[in-house]
Amino acid sequence: MRSLLGLDWGTSSLRGALLDSDGNVISERSFPRGISTVAAGQFNAVFNSCFADWMQTDTLCLIAGMAGSQQGWVEAPYCPCPAGFEDVAAQLAWVEPNRIGIVAGLSIDHNGLPDVMRGEETQVFGALRLLGLHTARLVLPGTHSKWVTTVDGRITDFSTYMTGEVYALLRQHSILARTMPDEDVAHSATAFERGISIALHGNGLLNTAFSVRTMALFNRMAIDALPSYLSGLVIGEELKSQHLSSSETLVLVGTPDLCERYQQALALLGIVPHIIGNQATWSGLRKIADKLES
Amino acid sequence: MRSLLGLDWGTSSLRGALLDSDGNVISERSFPRGISTVAAGQFNAVFNSCFADWMQTDTLCLIAGMAGSQQGWVEAPYCPCPAGFEDVAAQLAWVEPNRIGIVAGLSIDHNGLPDVMRGEETQVFGALRLLGLHTARLVLPGTHSKWVTTVDGRITDFSTYMTGEVYALLRQHSILARTMPDEDVAHSATAFERGISIALHGNGLLNTAFSVRTMALFNRMAIDALPSYLSGLVIGEELKSQHLSSSETLVLVGTPDLCERYQQALALLGIVPHIIGNQATWSGLRKIADKLES
Repeated sequence: MRSLLGLDWGTSSLRGALLDSDGNVISERSFPRGISTVAAGQFNAVFNSCFADWMQTDTLCLIAGMAGSQQGWVEAPYCPCPAGFEDVAAQLAWVEPNRIGIVAGLSIDHNGLPDVMRGEETQVFGALRLLGLHTARLVLPGTHSKWVTTVDGRITDFSTYMTGEVYALLRQHSILARTMPDEDVAHSATAFERGISIALHGNGLLNTAFSVRTMALFNRMAIDALPSYLSGLVIGEELKSQHLSSSETLVLVGTPDLCERYQQALALLGIVPHIIGNQATWSGLRKIADKLES
Repeated sequence: MRSLLGLDWGTSSLRGALLDSDGNVISERSFPRGISTVAAGQFNAVFNSCFADWMQTDTLCLIAGMAGSQQGWVEAPYCPCPAGFEDVAAQLAWVEPNRIGIVAGLSIDHNGLPDVMRGEETQVFGALRLLGLHTARLVLPGTHSKWVTTVDGRITDFSTYMTGEVYALLRQHSILARTMPDEDVAHSATAFERGISIALHGNGLLNTAFSVRTMALFNRMAIDALPSYLSGLVIGEELKSQHLSSSETLVLVGTPDLCERYQQALALLGIVPHIIGNQATWSGLRKIADKLES
């Protein structure tokens, strides 16, 4: 079994892990070299500057994420859903044949509306492997959160929610920004939960978001708690549209910060999710690599 | 009856009209001198430079809008709802006693969540007067759209929707901006209606907005049509949360551009609204002035 260099090369960051044949992480590195910082034609140079010393003669490198987009290193296709990891493994876009490959993304059509993912498919396959699950519902929170359904190990449905991006827009660029502190402030669990609760019973984010302003205007909430309140309103809006039941088996895949917030929000719905960190990507890439060599 | 100078002094613009005793507009002026352009202490100077020649000895000036906010000329109170125009007329904030007055705004409390308006209350009272209505539902589209319920001439309920602002944030600052033309493009009625329809049956704006990106990615819609499509998604989201029925008597108050879009959107729900332009403000101010002198 060849050693594997796994990369998670997204829009804003580049992370890599050297894995042994069992999928154990031998070493990890992270760089602020997301594809948005890499000029066309410079991907090879950035790759070598970050990882050349890890690429031995027989090392296989597999890359998940936006490195496979039009603005990335080499464009990888979108596999139409339903799709399993075998489909994704069969459609790698090779930068160098059998040496550096980029994992295909997924696409789906909802009554004429397309949706896409790149990178999350690998996290999903990795999370299922780590948990020994085949049929599950997963949420991968982030700038563009993904809600994913798998049946017998295959991704049968998914939807994107622009939750993290809309939060950032409202936090930084809207009229609400004027009533909130400029700097990052400590998370207020109480304000966050109030936001979740209002969103779950509210009349939509276009309406509830305005309360960030009026709460400040009438001194109903401390200024430093408003960003957490807004975060609750936006994440609560995402959760509301999922129509979750408390008996739901849910897998939460993401960074510790985001997983903690979603865990707190889901608790209000009586849901205790399985939680998997970013090792999901390494596990998914190892699984695809094993398939290539089998 | 004294002659009346009516001002609509908002965040981004300053409009004025000289009215005769019947409320007819004798002359109108508009300046790009919204309160966001006026430094503290400079309101008097801006007022004089724009309107001094219209202020005869016995002219009354009444002002609606954000000029009555904390960042405005003189802070006017918020009247709690339900409130009629008599309540608003009784709580004018006088810049100069019995000569220049600012109309009070309105506030309401929805289960602990405050909401506010400044300026729209005057438009509502004016629109009711122009239409001879007392009990109605009104929508005042804009950066922050207001949905208002009146019973027997009094405002009993209202809610704010950040529709125009969220559209501008998504259009200019989000990842969707990268797939849309930089410049303003002609309105596409077809794309707008598709957006309305998708929003009305969709899973929330956090999800549907992402389709602006995927529609472009898969060449499902012309690039120049995407801003209209996004506009439909955002306005449709606002309409969806109103749970409107086709038998609804609805009054639409706003600029010709916005009224045309909302009229088109409402038609998809089988609703034909009454439409009133910005003369609603002048009519409302005349009504308040008459009350002062009666």
